[in-house]
Amino acid sequence: MEKVDFEILATCPKTGARLGRLHTPHGVVDTPAFMPVGTQGTVKAMAPEELEALGAQMLLSNTYHLYLRPGADLVAAAGGLHRFMHWPRALLTDSGGYQIFSLARLSQVTDEGVVFRSHLDGSSHFLSPEKVMEIQMLLGADIAMVLDQCLPYPVPYEEAAAAVARTTTWAKRSQEAHHAPRQALFGIVQGATYPDLRRRSAEEITALGFAGYGIGGLSVGEPKTLMEEMLAITVPLLPQDRPRYLMGVGSPDCLLMGIGQGIDLFDCVLPTRVARNGTVLTRRGKLVVRNAAYARDFRPLEEGCGCYACRRFSRAYVRHLLNAGEILGVRLTTIHNLYFTLTLMAAARRAIAAGHFAAFRKDFLATYAAEED
Amino acid sequence: MEKVDFEILATCPKTGARLGRLHTPHGVVDTPAFMPVGTQGTVKAMAPEELEALGAQMLLSNTYHLYLRPGADLVAAAGGLHRFMHWPRALLTDSGGYQIFSLARLSQVTDEGVVFRSHLDGSSHFLSPEKVMEIQMLLGADIAMVLDQCLPYPVPYEEAAAAVARTTTWAKRSQEAHHAPRQALFGIVQGATYPDLRRRSAEEITALGFAGYGIGGLSVGEPKTLMEEMLAITVPLLPQDRPRYLMGVGSPDCLLMGIGQGIDLFDCVLPTRVARNGTVLTRRGKLVVRNAAYARDFRPLEEGCGCYACRRFSRAYVRHLLNAGEILGVRLTTIHNLYFTLTLMAAARRAIAAGHFAAFRKDFLATYAAEED
Repeated sequence: MEKVDFEILATCPKTGARLGRLHTPHGVVDTPAFMPVGTQGTVKAMAPEELEALGAQMLLSNTYHLYLRPGADLVAAAGGLHRFMHWPRALLTDSGGYQIFSLARLSQVTDEGVVFRSHLDGSSHFLSPEKVMEIQMLLGADIAMVLDQCLPYPVPYEEAAAAVARTTTWAKRSQEAHHAPRQALFGIVQGATYPDLRRRSAEEITALGFAGYGIGGLSVGEPKTLMEEMLAITVPLLPQDRPRYLMGVGSPDCLLMGIGQGIDLFDCVLPTRVARNGTVLTRRGKLVVRNAAYARDFRPLEEGCGCYACRRFSRAYVRHLLNAGEILGVRLTTIHNLYFTLTLMAAARRAIAAGHFAAFRKDFLATYAAEED
Repeated sequence: MEKVDFEILATCPKTGARLGRLHTPHGVVDTPAFMPVGTQGTVKAMAPEELEALGAQMLLSNTYHLYLRPGADLVAAAGGLHRFMHWPRALLTDSGGYQIFSLARLSQVTDEGVVFRSHLDGSSHFLSPEKVMEIQMLLGADIAMVLDQCLPYPVPYEEAAAAVARTTTWAKRSQEAHHAPRQALFGIVQGATYPDLRRRSAEEITALGFAGYGIGGLSVGEPKTLMEEMLAITVPLLPQDRPRYLMGVGSPDCLLMGIGQGIDLFDCVLPTRVARNGTVLTRRGKLVVRNAAYARDFRPLEEGCGCYACRRFSRAYVRHLLNAGEILGVRLTTIHNLYFTLTLMAAARRAIAAGHFAAFRKDFLATYAAEED
């Protein structure tokens, strides 16, 4: 077997959706799959067993954060990230590109690499494609990502074109520097919101040949229609037999949109982040349980939901906990939002298998969009 | 059956320790028992099922906090505190006396009651013994406590004597105001560190006749030897057949000391509070896992411990989580400290049953005291 093997089990007759199975050294991931984000080697507020119980089969962790704290060498000394965080299933680490270009204070970007200051203590660091591979090999996730150059939205064409060129060069250097017997490497397609740049990047990156392909630089503030347009241009240029990963996307409607465009993997902090702000995802849209309106609402967060939080506790209690700054409050909203998202993905997979994904998506969005915002 | 029934199963031949069973409307509590503290209707960082799994049979919650937020009427509307927080086992609420005299800004204490300002928003409140009974009846715990007057340490004799008199008056009024078919009421003995006041308070409070007796005003800064001396004076004056509750005590050595003096119930924020500060309890004393010394220590928090945290994770990982402000960090230290405390209590009960509690305590303290601080 390759480091990861990908098989396609079914395709949707009306959309680009596909049902698959990603085999990794740490188990199978049923796709399309959503990866909860464990930025610092833990999915905020959750224990590993709770994530498994919710059906999570793969997590994402952040190279940038782990490099800064506790350090990749420490994680390696612990036996790698799986053992360090006691997660027995599949793991993917990003390259840190997105964080370097968004969280850190950038000092200098050259073809050689990136000089930046840590968001933690202001210390100065240099990361190159080679160094990023070294770090990810020490972390030892099942899938590593090449270093790419991420841009905000909107961005001038010339800047985007230069980032595409640099991303290709860095992808090649990442590939040359990566040598790990049990870790696959994914390339990343950039190109901002420019169709010709997306095409150019897809052609250049696929020409290098990776075990899978990330689509980066989307969900950075552009309209959702533009994101969909870029996927419609990019996805057909990616090899059919390799997994496709839409990076940083995780709202319910965008997940279903991405699945329809043929995406197999997603990650996003949205479900866990909004949970900590007191917002829960429901089939009717977002519900801000922190609001005073729910002070005496003794119904569950979402009626009919089967998650632990909804089976046990009321909106009034969760609101009280959030109001009082109690940890159990964010544990419960986090559990609910991850259950909601992972259950939505499982339902989408069943719909693809049954050949009615298009109708499933339409039904979901009819209720969801109607009451969002 | 009474609202609570207490049976004594065994007594220690060498100390005052006794093994018992407290029957409540929400199940049996094996005594001596430690009650984890759920100040705001939740034991910080824990879910109810986790507490049950650790062996907790009774929790304490704080009347003062719940009265201020979310309000006793809201808890009553939810069906009472058991249902609100989804805790199916026994619950005890304190009277708020300690919190009013320590957390709130006191405006006025008269025989009638206490005027104070909320620590949350500075709003002004008046609580009398009658009002405190009304609140606790709305909360609906299995055991309520009378309103008492708490004092700091040290305190002049005259002040302590006045507080004893007021505590007796308030106990009588609490008793008269309390009428709940499924809630027992405990009296509280005060008297600071003055032997004659302790005796007087014990005589006056027991003369009123309660289902059980709290011993308050200890563990407020006085030397441990003085606490033990007060217990040695007070406990013999309490009825043999009623449970005795040492309020606010929960360090490992004081638990064993209290058990030896014939105490049946304890509560304390110590295990959960120090956990959140990155300190774990071990048989060799406290271990500050947050310290840099543990950065690359891949051993469990306590070697040989059977708790979830110790079976799964390393000191290095827990330290990383605490350092990074991750919720799982305090979840793990809290689980360990409650497991440690509840397991110590279970071991003490087995030792009493087997007739060798004195030896058990000596063995434990030999290792524990040796390395503490």
